[in-house]
Amino acid sequence: MPSPDETRPKYRQIADSLRKAIQSGEYGPGDRLPGENDLMAGHGVARMTVRQALGVLKDEGLTEARKGAGVFVRSFQPLRRRGVQRLSQEQWGSGRSIWSADVEDRDFVVDHVTVSEDAAPERIGWVLDLPEGDTVCVRRRRFVLDGKPVLLATSYLPTSLVAGSAVTQEDTGPGGTYARLAELGCKPVHFREEIRSRMPTKDEAEHLNIAAGTPVILICRTAYADGNRPVEVNEMTLDAASYVLEYAFEA
Amino acid sequence: MPSPDETRPKYRQIADSLRKAIQSGEYGPGDRLPGENDLMAGHGVARMTVRQALGVLKDEGLTEARKGAGVFVRSFQPLRRRGVQRLSQEQWGSGRSIWSADVEDRDFVVDHVTVSEDAAPERIGWVLDLPEGDTVCVRRRRFVLDGKPVLLATSYLPTSLVAGSAVTQEDTGPGGTYARLAELGCKPVHFREEIRSRMPTKDEAEHLNIAAGTPVILICRTAYADGNRPVEVNEMTLDAASYVLEYAFEA
Repeated sequence: MPSPDETRPKYRQIADSLRKAIQSGEYGPGDRLPGENDLMAGHGVARMTVRQALGVLKDEGLTEARKGAGVFVRSFQPLRRRGVQRLSQEQWGSGRSIWSADVEDRDFVVDHVTVSEDAAPERIGWVLDLPEGDTVCVRRRRFVLDGKPVLLATSYLPTSLVAGSAVTQEDTGPGGTYARLAELGCKPVHFREEIRSRMPTKDEAEHLNIAAGTPVILICRTAYADGNRPVEVNEMTLDAASYVLEYAFEA
Repeated sequence: MPSPDETRPKYRQIADSLRKAIQSGEYGPGDRLPGENDLMAGHGVARMTVRQALGVLKDEGLTEARKGAGVFVRSFQPLRRRGVQRLSQEQWGSGRSIWSADVEDRDFVVDHVTVSEDAAPERIGWVLDLPEGDTVCVRRRRFVLDGKPVLLATSYLPTSLVAGSAVTQEDTGPGGTYARLAELGCKPVHFREEIRSRMPTKDEAEHLNIAAGTPVILICRTAYADGNRPVEVNEMTLDAASYVLEYAFEA
């Protein structure tokens, strides 16, 4: 929709032409953009104008400045998260983790794992249809890909359902939580994912090591067993620069 | 995950407590937050500290300042976009628009409609599997809900498929483009939606009248007819503060 236009401020024209060069692949991921002096000479403008133009691209999340080295096209290759296939029963039913469906052959680590029994937050108790005062098993963890934290996740499961099972252990075993729920007679058969996006809180930006000008994507998934029984709520916070979400479905 | 902590800077503690009050509903959509003087007195801090705290909430997109009137909890009620149901054949097959599935009883307008025949952008020609040099029918429009622009959409369809049909008119008729494709023997049977999020470009922010500190959600949908034949690519840009996306599916 944006079209270069002589009536636009010069810094926006420069930003437009750099953006076009990035989107066309002339500057690929990890490439260094021309320096300020080159851009000043090339466009016949003052340093301030060049800095404004570079600021536009940084705010859009297309580039990142590295101190003393210049401005680079962002190089992290986003994960393709196939929303439907990754949760198919063939995945966790065969002992694979859901997360392993996303990462293909790349290096990943799950860290900051904590498991606790807590009072159910009001919104969670409501979704899980818990009797007043019932507690939940809360599983928190962070996913790190190629050294970059990309996702924070917190799952809530009714204590009345999972007490004494491996769901309450740090290592839930092959196939993870969903395989254990199946063994408990509550196999997830239906999922609903809600997606939102906003700027990160300072805490989220720190935990995910998020670059300036980058939003987070929030996914709230509810897993249902037969009879439309809610068995898990999973609240996820994703670095938006690290993910492409994909959903495929029939008309 | 954030927990109030005496070691945190005071402005962040104040932001945490205000955020909690908003999330709990103590301050609902459209409500005015306490004024600077009240917050200064209540927390025993300087005006600068209060302003920093309010800046945190604004950056997170939770509040908006209205000149001379104070700071308010954002009041626009987001649209719930049910990704799968809205594209079911019962929707467009019965003459309803897809968009009408999202808006329920609220006031909406589709404006800035343009239809043109253009060279296919490279990425589009690739997805639509077009022979070199084939053109596309490009349909652009903007969706405005309760007076607020919420979505920009640009659809691309092969000219070889839609030339001479109502798809090339501003008004595509009952059931819209998909109903017309069905009449042309190319009924969409399968969809894939890709979702990304980033900060808006200046143009997008202007066209969508986006508040500061608010990202956009990008949805790129490809519609496929029988035989996995791609018949439309629709690139959408959504004001993230105006939308919750929902996808429901089976394990």
